[in-house]
Formats: sequence, C-alpha cells, structure tokens
Amino acid sequence: METLPDVQACQPEYPINLTRVGLTGVKKLVKVLREDEGRPIVLISNFEVFVDLPSDRKGANLSRNFEVIDEVLEEAVNEPVYVIEELCGEIARRVLSKHEYATRAEVKMKSEYIVERSSPVTRTAGQEVVDIFAEAVAKAGHVRKLVGAEVVGMTACPCAQEIMRDQVRKELLTLGLSQEEAFDFAAKLPVATHNQRGRGMISIQVCDRRCVSLDEIIKIIERSMSSRVFGLLKRPDEALVVQRAHNNPKFVEDCVRTMAQKLVEAFEDLPDDAVIVLKQVNEESIHQHNAFAERSATMGELRAELGTEDSASAREVPKR
Amino acid sequence: METLPDVQACQPEYPINLTRVGLTGVKKLVKVLREDEGRPIVLISNFEVFVDLPSDRKGANLSRNFEVIDEVLEEAVNEPVYVIEELCGEIARRVLSKHEYATRAEVKMKSEYIVERSSPVTRTAGQEVVDIFAEAVAKAGHVRKLVGAEVVGMTACPCAQEIMRDQVRKELLTLGLSQEEAFDFAAKLPVATHNQRGRGMISIQVCDRRCVSLDEIIKIIERSMSSRVFGLLKRPDEALVVQRAHNNPKFVEDCVRTMAQKLVEAFEDLPDDAVIVLKQVNEESIHQHNAFAERSATMGELRAELGTEDSASAREVPKR
Amino acid sequence: METLPDVQACQPEYPINLTRVGLTGVKKLVKVLREDEGRPIVLISNFEVFVDLPSDRKGANLSRNFEVIDEVLEEAVNEPVYVIEELCGEIARRVLSKHEYATRAEVKMKSEYIVERSSPVTRTAGQEVVDIFAEAVAKAGHVRKLVGAEVVGMTACPCAQEIMRDQVRKELLTLGLSQEEAFDFAAKLPVATHNQRGRGMISIQVCDRRCVSLDEIIKIIERSMSSRVFGLLKRPDEALVVQRAHNNPKFVEDCVRTMAQKLVEAFEDLPDDAVIVLKQVNEESIHQHNAFAERSATMGELRAELGTEDSASAREVPKR
Amino acid sequence: METLPDVQACQPEYPINLTRVGLTGVKKLVKVLREDEGRPIVLISNFEVFVDLPSDRKGANLSRNFEVIDEVLEEAVNEPVYVIEELCGEIARRVLSKHEYATRAEVKMKSEYIVERSSPVTRTAGQEVVDIFAEAVAKAGHVRKLVGAEVVGMTACPCAQEIMRDQVRKELLTLGLSQEEAFDFAAKLPVATHNQRGRGMISIQVCDRRCVSLDEIIKIIERSMSSRVFGLLKRPDEALVVQRAHNNPKFVEDCVRTMAQKLVEAFEDLPDDAVIVLKQVNEESIHQHNAFAERSATMGELRAELGTEDSASAREVPKR
Repeated sequence: METLPDVQACQPEYPINLTRVGLTGVKKLVKVLREDEGRPIVLISNFEVFVDLPSDRKGANLSRNFEVIDEVLEEAVNEPVYVIEELCGEIARRVLSKHEYATRAEVKMKSEYIVERSSPVTRTAGQEVVDIFAEAVAKAGHVRKLVGAEVVGMTACPCAQEIMRDQVRKELLTLGLSQEEAFDFAAKLPVATHNQRGRGMISIQVCDRRCVSLDEIIKIIERSMSSRVFGLLKRPDEALVVQRAHNNPKFVEDCVRTMAQKLVEAFEDLPDDAVIVLKQVNEESIHQHNAFAERSATMGELRAELGTEDSASAREVPKR
Repeated sequence: METLPDVQACQPEYPINLTRVGLTGVKKLVKVLREDEGRPIVLISNFEVFVDLPSDRKGANLSRNFEVIDEVLEEAVNEPVYVIEELCGEIARRVLSKHEYATRAEVKMKSEYIVERSSPVTRTAGQEVVDIFAEAVAKAGHVRKLVGAEVVGMTACPCAQEIMRDQVRKELLTLGLSQEEAFDFAAKLPVATHNQRGRGMISIQVCDRRCVSLDEIIKIIERSMSSRVFGLLKRPDEALVVQRAHNNPKFVEDCVRTMAQKLVEAFEDLPDDAVIVLKQVNEESIHQHNAFAERSATMGELRAELGTEDSASAREVPKR
Repeated sequence: METLPDVQACQPEYPINLTRVGLTGVKKLVKVLREDEGRPIVLISNFEVFVDLPSDRKGANLSRNFEVIDEVLEEAVNEPVYVIEELCGEIARRVLSKHEYATRAEVKMKSEYIVERSSPVTRTAGQEVVDIFAEAVAKAGHVRKLVGAEVVGMTACPCAQEIMRDQVRKELLTLGLSQEEAFDFAAKLPVATHNQRGRGMISIQVCDRRCVSLDEIIKIIERSMSSRVFGLLKRPDEALVVQRAHNNPKFVEDCVRTMAQKLVEAFEDLPDDAVIVLKQVNEESIHQHNAFAERSATMGELRAELGTEDSASAREVPKR
Repeated sequence: METLPDVQACQPEYPINLTRVGLTGVKKLVKVLREDEGRPIVLISNFEVFVDLPSDRKGANLSRNFEVIDEVLEEAVNEPVYVIEELCGEIARRVLSKHEYATRAEVKMKSEYIVERSSPVTRTAGQEVVDIFAEAVAKAGHVRKLVGAEVVGMTACPCAQEIMRDQVRKELLTLGLSQEEAFDFAAKLPVATHNQRGRGMISIQVCDRRCVSLDEIIKIIERSMSSRVFGLLKRPDEALVVQRAHNNPKFVEDCVRTMAQKLVEAFEDLPDDAVIVLKQVNEESIHQHNAFAERSATMGELRAELGTEDSASAREVPKR
C-alpha cells in the first residue's frame, strides 16, 4: 500500500495559506480527577484540533494525521488528568511536532463536569452539572492555554424590586405604621421581583506552565449571582434560597462585576497579563429575550479598576 | 433518459412493510394571513412528508416523488393560507393520490409566528414570536388534522410563596400589628417567590373539515400562566407584570388545568372526540432541571371532568 | 418547619386529571458496565421522571418528591448497572410506591455510550460514541420497559449508482470492449454515487423482566447501513470503507428492512408481542433535506412478513 | 410614576467597566428585498444589541433602553432593506446616540434567506434556504460593518478517489486494455469516493459606507464546493450532480482556497484592508467527526498570495 498516491502533498490549485485545518466534533473519553474525592470521573469530551497549512501544500494529510491526533489523545487520557488546560496544551505541543509544515497547533475541549453540593438548610447532598472548557495554542517554543466554566444560577432583578418595595412602603403607611417603621420593614422584607436562571461564564488565559483551579472558577461564578441553584431542595431549603436571592438582587451587570471582584481576590498569583473573559446571560422571566453582560480584560486592568494594583505590585516585590 | 433504471420499483431484499418513508427538514416559504391585519406574512416553515410503502416495493421512488411533493407544496403556498392544518391536509391528500402504492400520507409542519401585543400599562406596541405546528394524516376517504402552538410565559411558584408569606406575617406581628392586620396585609402583598419562564403547549386534533383558531389557542396558553411575557416593558409595565404574576401564582400542574378549563370554555363547538394534548414546562429558577405537566384527553373527557358535559349535550341537541 | 403550609395537597381550582407530572432535564451520573471489558464507565445521563395526578390534588408535591426521586436515583446508580432499561424500571417502581396518589410512574433516560471498534484493514483501535436510551412505565403489578440506540453510519444511494453504471457501460463499449466484458466490469466496479451519513435507530419494548442486549442492538444498526463509520482510518482503511459502501448501496428503506431482518435473526427469544420501532435518517449529500424511513411493528408481525413465524411457533412449542 | 427609583443610575458595588451590556435572542421581523424579484420577503431575524458601560454606572438602564432599541428596530425595518449590514449599521449608530454614557454600540443579526435556483438538467425551479448574518460596531464618528452567509453544498474527497482510481486502472489492465487506454478511461470515469454535505461560510468586514452583495457571496460559496445541493432533483439532474461532484473533488482546504480565489476575482473593488473570514466544514460520510478549514486575512493579503496585488495597486492609482 506504500504506493498509494499522496494527494495531500501536492501543490494546491490556489496558493492560499490556511489559518486552521483540522477536525471538529471529535468525542473522546477523558478521565478527570476531582478535587473533592479520590476516584476520577470518565467524561465524554468534545475536541477540536487544528494546525495551520502553508500555501504550497494541498492538504493537511488528515488521513495520516488523524492517526497522530488520535494516538496523542489516547495516550494523554491514559493518566488521571485534573488540569484540562494542560491536557489541551500537551496535545497541541505533540500535534505541532508531528506536522513538519505547521507553525501553530490549536486544541479546544468542552465537557460536562460534576460538582458535589449540599442544600443550604437540610444539608441534603446533591450533584450539579457544569460545563467546562479548555483551549491551547502551541507555537514554536511556547504554549498559550485557556480554561473556563459556565454555571447556572439564579438572579433576582434589583430594579423591579425597588419599584415593588416602594409600593409596600405605601401600603404599610396606610396601616398606620410610621415612616420609619415602614422603611425599616420594607427594607428587611424579601420584596417580590422577577427572578430567573442565569448563566455565568469565566475564562482565564495564561501564557506559561501556570495552572488555574477549575473548582475555584466554578465557586466564583456560583457566588456572583443572587443565589446558587440546586438539584434537590426540601421545603426549608427552598424558602432559604428564595429569601437569599431576594436579599441579594443582581443585574446582569452586577454579576459580571462581582465575578471580576472575586476573581481578583481569589487569584492573587495570576500575572497581570492573564486574559480574562467574564460573561453573564440572564433568561429574564418577564421577556422572551435575554439580558447579557461581558467584560474582556487583563488581570492587570481588573486590578487597576478595583484599586488593588498596589497589593499586586507589593505581591510581586519578592520576585525582584 | 427514459431508459434509466427504475431501481425503486424492484423487489426489496426483505419483504418488510414500511410505516413511513419520506423527507424531513424540507424548508419552504409559507404565506400566513394573520387575523389582526390585512397583509400576509411569508414564513420559512419546516416540513416532513411521508407515505407508507408495501413490502414488495424497494423504494418510495423519492427521486421522482420529490417532484410531486414539491409541486404540491409550491402550488399550495401560492394562495394566502391562514389555516395551517388545512394546508397540511391538502398536501397529504395530494401526496396520497400521487403514490398509487401508498395507503396513508402524513404531513407535519413547524413554523414561527408573530402576534401583536401591547404592554399592560403604557400600551407600547410589540411583537411576540410563538412556535406553531400542524399535522395531517390522509387515508382513503378521510383526513385527520392537528394544529397547535407553544408559547413562552411567566410562572410564579405558589408553594414557596406561601412559606414566604408565613414569614412576613410573623415579622408583621413583631411590629405590633394585630393577627388580623398581619393576615390582611400579608394576603394583599405580592409576596416574593421563585418565578421563571414557562412554556405552554396546546395541540388539538380533529377528524373532519373543521378548523381551529390558532390565535385563540395562543391566547389560552398566554392566559394560563402567572403572566404573559413581553418584548418591551417600560418601568410601570414591568412593575405591573411582576405584581400580576405574584398575585396569580401557578404550579406547572395549575397551568395545564387552566388551559383545559379555558379550552373547554372557548371551543364550545369542538366535538367530544377531538383529541387534546396540553403541556407545560417551567424552567424553574431555583433548579437546573424543569418542572413538567401534561394532559392528553378527548374534549369529551375534559368536559366531563369539569362538569360541563351537560351543556355539551345541550349544545349538541340542535344537531339531532 | 413542620407547620409550613402544604399547598400541593389542596384542591386544585379545576378538577382535571393529569397524565404526567414531573421533572425533565435531570442530569445524573450513571455507572454503565460494558460487555467488552471489566471497568464500568460513569456517564452523565439525562432523566425524565413522571407520575400521574388525580383531579383532587393540586400538586405532585414536587418539593417533597424531588427528594424521593433523587434518593431513588442515587441509590440505583450505586451499583454497576449494565441494563439501563432495568435501571429505569427500578426507578419507576420505587417512584410509584412513594406517590400514594399515583397509579402510573414513567422514567426516561438518554445517554452517550462508548463502543470499541477497530478499523477494517490496519486494525487500528478506536472508540465510537453512540446514543442510547431507555424508558419504563410502572403500573400496579407490572412494568413495561423500552431500550434502544441511535448509531451513525454511511449510506450510498443505489439509484444514482445504477444511472452512473449505465454511463460506465456505454463508455466501456466505446473503448472496444464487448457487451459482456462491459457489463462484467461495470458490475465489479465500485461505481460512483452520492453517499452520506445516516442515522439508524432501533427501540425494543418488552413487558416483563426480560432484558435486551444493547451491544447487539448497536451492532445490528451498524451492519444495516452501507458501511460503518470510524474515528480513525489510515489510507488502506479508507479505501476499503469507500469500496465496501459502494458495493453495498442502500436506500433509506433498505436500511430499515435490513434492521428488521437482522433483528428477527438475532433476537430469537423475544416474544411476539415485543414492540419494535426501526428508523433511518439519511443526511443526503445532494440535498439540504433528509430521507427518512420507519417501521413500527410487533416482533410477531416482522416474523410473519419475513416468513420466519414457523420457526417462531416451533420455538414456542416447548413452552406449551 | 416619575418618582420610581432609577436603580440603574446608581454607583455599582465594584467599579468595573463592562465591554458589552445588552440583549440577546431578540426576534424581529425584517423585510428583505431580493435581487432577483420585486416583492420583499419578511423574515424573522434574531438580533443581539450591546453597548459598553462605564465603571461608575450600575446598569445600562435596560428597562428604559429596551424601548429605544425596540423603536430603532421597528423604524429601521419599516422600509425595504436589502443590505442587512447597513440595517445593523443604522441600528448601532442610533443605539449609540441614545446612550449618553456609551462609547460603543454593537449589533448582530442572523436570519434565514431564500434563493431561487433551478436544477441543472431539467431546469426545475426550486428554493434553497441559506443562513445569512450581519454585524455592526458604531464608535464616535465611524461604523465597522460585517456581512456574510453560510451555505450547504456537496464535497467529494480527492484522496479516496485517487486510491480508488488506482484500483480501477489495475482492473482495466486485467481486461486487456493498454496502459494508456486504462489511464485515459480511469481519468474520465467519475470514480467512486466518499462525498458528503459541506458548509461553506464567508464573512466580509468593511470600514466605511461600502456595501457588499450578499447574493454574490452566496454564489461564491456554492461554486467553491464539488457541487451545489438542490431541493428537487429529477433523475437526469441527480446523475449530473453526482457526476459533476466526482469530476470536481475537493478537500476541505480546497473549498476555502477556491472561495479565496473567487472572492478576490469577484470583489475587485473591496479595499485591501477589508477583513475576510472563510470557513468550510465537511460532515465526512466515513467519520462521525467533521473536517474543518479556515482562513482569516485581509483582502490585501489574499491578493498578494494569489499574485493579483499588482492589479489591485493599479486599481488604486486613480484614487491618488
């Protein structure tokens, strides 16, 4: 079979460079070790793998390279891997080394992930499913990696709540309460507002061997909405969740800003040039459409806006 | 080209009858005339068209029959059609007549549809998109048709609200209000609860030339949830929508039962053997999963359960 | 918290029976033991769980019943489970026993599943992902179960191939070959035709404790198309796959009939009243739309059509 | 209602700038005038509308701004609009002018679109549905616009075909044909290979008032695959489509390069700094996964690679 024609190595009809040539929709089993317990979970993950292609080569020889990519994936998943961005980084490095004509290899991965959570009052144990993803781009000598998660939570609208609170105060005055009493009571009450499922997303891109805790990312997203959501809520749990969400109303903008603040606080050791993307989508219960907010920035920019760049500088001092 | 082989007319390898052979994912422009205004809307609709196939014929000759189906669709959409189940009925009848070996033809159609709605306080005009669908099955001599819609609305949970109301009453008592005052006030207050997008669905299957108002179906679904949703809400509108939803809390079960009641009330002339399916999915804001309820029944069964079968009988008297 | 109001136990506003009340989109980890190796795989599966609800009860008390359903699921997944329809059956039985007001419980489950396959020439090992599903309905005293799979394969069109073959024969005659030589050669040649991804689906519903081999179902679907598809094909593998598919052209109808024949052959011990659904969708490369075929029947009907009911009767003789 | 609290204008808890705040999933009717006929089609399009938000403002006041956005959309769609990127540009300009605190407004739109096409032999008329999209970003003084389309076609693999052709030649030699005859015949024959649906995508971003023909973009994508796909093919049409595709085999890389060449040829007047993205996804019939290729570049870069930059320079001379 050695004599089979190598069509891919021919000159293409038009000498155009290609930015990405590869595969999408590749499903593979990936073992993920979870922080909170010993045994790893084997998850079906969805991969995309690309290389660039020079203008003098017809094809990326995918019929031969499928094999390389697959071998790399198989081998890479044979040991428990917790850090999925490092898994992508390793695949990208090897794919690049196997394509002599390529200068850049890119790997993307998406998966579902399970976290253990217990309900707030009755402490009933449950599992929540979150979406996780990672990417890596390998070029000669260095790899840029990205990791992130998307988590569902609950958001309650502060604007509608303020309008409703105004009405409650007026009602209380008609009952004979004093202005002060009315204000105090209305302030304490979990006043009605529209609330809904929200989806928070954080991605972090780093340029070196540094790794980022996915579990920390997930916790930050959960805590940046009005409340977490739960698989199983007994009645006292449900009451507390509703009360908490109404005592912590959040615009879609607030969710993103809270993520930024918590991220800066939690990832003190991330370098200033780490690229951060924060997104929130609220599936508003009063509309068919969604509310959306996003911030794309470096860690350094977020630190500067929050006035924590001094501590960041301070933090860097030992390095000098 | 007359001599091209007719592979489809051959004997199949295994003499198995087929229930459905046909096409899915066929997108066609359909003109829909709306009740509320003169000019029709041209919508891209998704069709499925099937016939049955006897065990002695290899293929439904789709290469030739594509043409028939397409011609029928083209011709049928050339006149303003408001009644989409009758459009499906006509296609099914013609498809059946063109397939000499078939005893049954089936057509399904899905589309988006626009309804004009204005906001509740400021009367701001807006458009809402709803999903509509229709089906028809033609056999020798008769056609069975189905029409329906799926509409997004807002639901507020009665159970969480009762628990929260209990807490409000206790708070009011500590403020020095009497038991009676506390109860009265808590009863009037739009007490906080979890609320969310819900999706209500009604389908109605009838056996004769009878047609069913799609706009009526859509209105029933909208009015069976805690509140409608809107494209554009100014601040006073938003306050009223939140208040209404909280004054009209509905379990997923309540939505289906309310649809049943309103359907029986609105479609007095539907025969007792019309088959009704009612569904509701609530995308609960406190969970990642959804709450679901469904009723499948005949109009006669729904009337009997609601105690309106007498009026139904009475209604039928003139026909005898 | 004992005194919290039990809103669900109230009378509903409208006394309508409900066919299904429950949850959709419930994601749970399920351990699946694979036939071909020792260690189980833990997969994230998607569940739906329903009960019926009488007309005199407002809600299915989902806030309390969530707990029951979750406990049942947790417990059921704590032991290696290979037979997913029996997992659904067990959940349905227990859910029914916990809802004193329900007469029927229904459980549906969907998941991805991994099968090991090697390429046809170079025997390169690879994993293929298939979709699997199971359902169970429990009523007093008995459970009806269903299990099935959907698998991607390759189909090549026999009709276009015959037309192309006709052209090849004419060309060969102009080269000076005899009629016989031209026919022989054209018959051997893997003549070009449109080919594409197809999706085959089999579901089997049985009424007793009987279980059905999911791996057998998957193999039947794979072998009923023109060729299987593969994750990794080296060049000689790819050539063989293309050749095999072109030597085994299949209409969408042929795929369903082949599944029927192979099913009757492979599941000799399935009772005549087992309900079978066979579907095939071909994503035809020459169209934007798909070709579709389906057969719904009992095993008895399929056996009768294939003329194997005698052996079936013979098989049953010992039972009398 | 003037006294309702303006929560959005408050200081946010954390002074973080936001890159994008707005709405997603907004469905609106858009009138599209087609090149090939007089009457416009009204299509349901999906919009996203964003502005940026400074760090000292809690919310983008979506409750009030919804109104602005909606009005702009309503008004903009009241006249026949063919050029969808200009529609997005106009919305972006107006949204920006209504948000005194914003420095940037962004609008995205997606829709389906209908093109009329007739089959290649029998000239049977038919409609094809393609996906179209447009975007615009408005900043003080200028607007950057993007327009594009995604079209389904058919691709046949050149590599598998060469291997099959090799086998055909060997067979022909055994029939007694000379080397030359065998080569000639094998070269003419539409030799079998795997073929499948492909999806080509072109987007073009321009910086000024310049508009780009969407119909031209669609034609280029169609002509860059092995063959177009059709809604209705009579038997002679189907034969010709299969033959054409097999006489024009294309790797996923070839499709992108052909799009580049045809784009440079067709859009002579596009400036060198126009940003082009070209993508192709082939849903390979022999795999579960897809083959993918992409090129992102400026028109100037594509011209340079194709050696057509001289004519481009020549073209620009008169402007100096």
